[in-house]
Amino acid sequence: MCVFCSIIEGSIPSYKVYEDDGFLAILDICQTTYGHTLVMPKKHYENILEMPEDEAKELLSLTRKLADKIVKNLDAKGFNLLVNTGEVAGQSVPHVHFHIIPRYSENDTVKLEFTENKYDFLEITSKINKAV
Amino acid sequence: MCVFCSIIEGSIPSYKVYEDDGFLAILDICQTTYGHTLVMPKKHYENILEMPEDEAKELLSLTRKLADKIVKNLDAKGFNLLVNTGEVAGQSVPHVHFHIIPRYSENDTVKLEFTENKYDFLEITSKINKAV
Repeated sequence: MCVFCSIIEGSIPSYKVYEDDGFLAILDICQTTYGHTLVMPKKHYENILEMPEDEAKELLSLTRKLADKIVKNLDAKGFNLLVNTGEVAGQSVPHVHFHIIPRYSENDTVKLEFTENKYDFLEITSKINKAV
Repeated sequence: MCVFCSIIEGSIPSYKVYEDDGFLAILDICQTTYGHTLVMPKKHYENILEMPEDEAKELLSLTRKLADKIVKNLDAKGFNLLVNTGEVAGQSVPHVHFHIIPRYSENDTVKLEFTENKYDFLEITSKINKAV
């Protein structure tokens, strides 16, 4: 069984930040920063593209509320929201979740490094907008 | 004026991926991966917490649609969605935007590295859930 489904049904313990009928938020067991939180639907969807529209919107809505609360109550200076989709993107559990990563300092242990690559921009926009 | 507002009004050129009355998606001028796209509301909000609920939901909805299209049409194997909030979190333009970062290989130039830190989990959940 998916590890998040096991946490949701209670057979694996977790540190709960929030829970209602449809959603659960827990502390990431790997705390990148103080208060690093995962927000997920209780129903199993492998990724954010598989979620029904309404549930995806509710997930964002809850994530915003929790991010606001986390930043205020933990005195963070900002935060990252991150959704990894696919193993290639670093998704370690195939159950959709938003990461809320509160940030306190630019010198913390979060590394979000983007190296610039040179591509043909017109080729890309043309490819993206071709018929699927 | 905010650089994204200038792009939206057309005084700074951009490579458009999508546009409607309320939203604009453009290629990030710094292409971390092939097709790295930014999705933003045309109205200026500094960050995702400042957006009205309905607009934030619509922004996510559009971001999902575009991510699906980008992955399919560029043959990506996955993607990251990222919203940086605050300078400390790497937000370089103070106009809310989702990054869609298509991923093709684990050996690409995207570095999302999370070092694990040891904190008191119960202290954190208690602090998050104190009254604001």
